[in-house]
Amino acid sequence: MANDSNEQKEIEEKKALFVAHVRQLQDQITDTMKKFDPELEITEDIWTRLDANGQDGGGGRTRAFKGAVFETAGVNTSSVFGAVDPKFAKKIGGDGGTFWAAGISLIIHPINPKVPTVHANFRMIQAGEKIWYGGGADLTPYYPHLEDFRHFHQTWSDACKPYGTYQKWKETCDTYFTNTHRDNEMRGIGGIFFDHLNSGDREKDYAMVKDLSTHFIKSYFPIVEKRQSEAFTPEDEDFQLHRHGRYVEFNILHDRGTKFGLESNGRTDSILISLPHRAKFSYRYAPKENSPHAEMMGYFKPCDWI
Amino acid sequence: MANDSNEQKEIEEKKALFVAHVRQLQDQITDTMKKFDPELEITEDIWTRLDANGQDGGGGRTRAFKGAVFETAGVNTSSVFGAVDPKFAKKIGGDGGTFWAAGISLIIHPINPKVPTVHANFRMIQAGEKIWYGGGADLTPYYPHLEDFRHFHQTWSDACKPYGTYQKWKETCDTYFTNTHRDNEMRGIGGIFFDHLNSGDREKDYAMVKDLSTHFIKSYFPIVEKRQSEAFTPEDEDFQLHRHGRYVEFNILHDRGTKFGLESNGRTDSILISLPHRAKFSYRYAPKENSPHAEMMGYFKPCDWI
Repeated sequence: MANDSNEQKEIEEKKALFVAHVRQLQDQITDTMKKFDPELEITEDIWTRLDANGQDGGGGRTRAFKGAVFETAGVNTSSVFGAVDPKFAKKIGGDGGTFWAAGISLIIHPINPKVPTVHANFRMIQAGEKIWYGGGADLTPYYPHLEDFRHFHQTWSDACKPYGTYQKWKETCDTYFTNTHRDNEMRGIGGIFFDHLNSGDREKDYAMVKDLSTHFIKSYFPIVEKRQSEAFTPEDEDFQLHRHGRYVEFNILHDRGTKFGLESNGRTDSILISLPHRAKFSYRYAPKENSPHAEMMGYFKPCDWI
Repeated sequence: MANDSNEQKEIEEKKALFVAHVRQLQDQITDTMKKFDPELEITEDIWTRLDANGQDGGGGRTRAFKGAVFETAGVNTSSVFGAVDPKFAKKIGGDGGTFWAAGISLIIHPINPKVPTVHANFRMIQAGEKIWYGGGADLTPYYPHLEDFRHFHQTWSDACKPYGTYQKWKETCDTYFTNTHRDNEMRGIGGIFFDHLNSGDREKDYAMVKDLSTHFIKSYFPIVEKRQSEAFTPEDEDFQLHRHGRYVEFNILHDRGTKFGLESNGRTDSILISLPHRAKFSYRYAPKENSPHAEMMGYFKPCDWI
């Protein structure tokens, strides 16, 4: 190893701090959700895994939610490590020996179609001697409340301001969360997404990702607060459920994390917790002309929101 | 080409006969469905495609159904040909030059959870100088009516009797329609499945596949007749919708035809017509203990049905 022992120590410290941070964030988000949804049922599963050699490979804390405001949600943290299965060595980008990865990954599907679905994750990865970060947050609304979309993007733009990264990460997000098999229709209205982040300054990268992750709560929950009691129609719900269908298609067909997780024999229930509780699929589905839902369809493409 | 012109002529004749046959079968199945479901709405789309070089690449006749007995269904025929996209040449198994493929593919999702979902397809493929057939039929029930499963398997066993292929194709089907990411749980209770069928006797292969395909109607519709008016409970429906969720997972994650169709820029709506109209996903879903649904879970693995 090129790193001297002080460097090693500092890296191990960062990893421990990152794990502590995402677990704390998981608790904060859980508490915020409880505040909005007093009927929220939480199933917590602590799981462990074996690595490719059958050795201790870490584990995670999965929290599955079911409530009156949040129909289904998952807020998970994990910290996994060990020998890499040779068939994934290339994908994970390391030296094929060992890896370490930790992070928080969450998805919230509210019942009311006036409240958007949200997804976010923040992760730290070490493969061989390389360390990098990835993450982001994106919104999937079902009703054209443009001020909500602006609030979400403005929050992330402000969060990124010290680092000058919003525009680039917003474009990465627009490109990534796209159903290429549906004429490049986006899953939602985007947000930010970054991967393989490594500036060479370990201290700076860690501080930035930690800082960014703390903006999630204010990017999303004010929208829940504003919309959760709004009335909705059967048409609003039908549109939401068909968009849930597209959400399922994206996650299973295109999402790299989901594919990698399932192919590498990950914990299926923790991975597919991202799927909405109810989804609809219809041949050549299209919302009624001149409806708010038809308008909404026009926003599932790259747009400037700030 | 090694084939002389008489051989060429005979091959072209077989291809034309196969196309005519699957179109006739499409009409027969459509008529049978109408008999059971007088409210059935049928959307017929005639589509065409371009091949990898932008030349005429054939097309198809998609029929999408929506009714009071059959919640959603697709009975499609297509006949496509032309230059092969180099990135798929290996998959399709030919010489990478041109291909021709025709067939019928159908899926029927009834509303009543006491009536099983069914899927079948029969196809003829020519790639370079190679010709082969593939196909089969499989049942996805939601209630432990074992006599129905026996009827379905017995029909296909009888159909295969002259060819001695039931046991082998039944095992291929059990292996193929399996959610490997769900502890090898099968999508349903199987049926028969075969691929790359080429015995060297063109006449015999054609006659056999044509003959087999004619057994579909009697393998399935007697079950519809028997069950379509049976009462069902909200628990029956909830189980059905969660099994629909597993159906979606299988089709999008594992089905070779779906994957190939989407990756090769096929007609998305015709491909994903296989998805059920409504589906549910729940974290760590399991039916109630000692319920008929818990019993049903025990049959989603290879079983002897005759």
